[in-house]
Amino acid sequence: MQELKERILTDGKVLPGDIIKVDGFLNHRVDCALMSRIADEFARFFDIDNVDLLLTAEASGIALTAICAMRYGKPMLYAKKAKSDNIEGGLFTSEIFSYTYKKKVTLLVSKDWIQPGTRVLIIDDFLARGEALRGLCDIVKQAGAELVGIGCAIEKGFQGGGDHLREMGVNLHSLAILDVAEPGHIVFRDDE
Amino acid sequence: MQELKERILTDGKVLPGDIIKVDGFLNHRVDCALMSRIADEFARFFDIDNVDLLLTAEASGIALTAICAMRYGKPMLYAKKAKSDNIEGGLFTSEIFSYTYKKKVTLLVSKDWIQPGTRVLIIDDFLARGEALRGLCDIVKQAGAELVGIGCAIEKGFQGGGDHLREMGVNLHSLAILDVAEPGHIVFRDDE
Repeated sequence: MQELKERILTDGKVLPGDIIKVDGFLNHRVDCALMSRIADEFARFFDIDNVDLLLTAEASGIALTAICAMRYGKPMLYAKKAKSDNIEGGLFTSEIFSYTYKKKVTLLVSKDWIQPGTRVLIIDDFLARGEALRGLCDIVKQAGAELVGIGCAIEKGFQGGGDHLREMGVNLHSLAILDVAEPGHIVFRDDE
Repeated sequence: MQELKERILTDGKVLPGDIIKVDGFLNHRVDCALMSRIADEFARFFDIDNVDLLLTAEASGIALTAICAMRYGKPMLYAKKAKSDNIEGGLFTSEIFSYTYKKKVTLLVSKDWIQPGTRVLIIDDFLARGEALRGLCDIVKQAGAELVGIGCAIEKGFQGGGDHLREMGVNLHSLAILDVAEPGHIVFRDDE
């Protein structure tokens, strides 16, 4: 997606440790008009009419997914990352490693909101090593639901998480894949 | 807001410990069409033309705030709740007590995205004791920004957090204020 790539080049920053800082428009301050155009772009790749539910993980996936859900007229569900008192009863859980916080995190989804056969499109803002997406796919599988695909805004191609999902046969589309990201030097993978 | 109150009565559940469970439409599974109508309702109370930025706290405030931001054509900013490597440089911080997680939590906002004079509307899904909102107001003040008001979807009136903010002169509007919430028995405060 050309607009997203240009925005990464103008407003993004590569920090030491392979960190792509895009907190001015994606995952701290959020440009919701851009999110809306990203939602439209995802709709070119996925058959939204055959999707029942959008799924993401808290926290940074929520803004983009909410706007997709509103535009598509679908409900969204976000996996929580810690046990809170506000979730009772049966849960699907999947343990992942958060490289951002350098600790294990458990993704939680209530069994009330995802059923066998539910057609799920996973949305996320960022794909690096793919741990959060692996956990979400695991939850979809536990539920006996159907994974329609995964839409990601930005993928760190050089970390391999996306290609690993593709090799597993997941219908993954990322709108900007960075194959090189060094301070002052970003190379995007060609569009599909 | 009549629709929201009816939804609380039909789909909400009061659990022991004063917990209002609305995870079927507000803070786990999210009904984004309802969020959109909540956004329109907030716009009746606040002069959106004179707002520069919508501010909320992760995670449950993000979906509603993103949809408000999209509908109003404004940027949004969400306070993070733990120090991550992806936020460099200057931060505004405010320590709050999370009754949900029963521990102290620090709200973080990058100084890059809120300036002196920025006119801020705070949005949140839930107001109980008001700790998160107190922290967000504190950050607005530290930044020298201007607090236009606070829009909340659901307020637990009986916990007093909202009334305390009103007594401090904050322009707070909640769309459904629960003055009594016991299993099987909910009483809403009259609309303003």
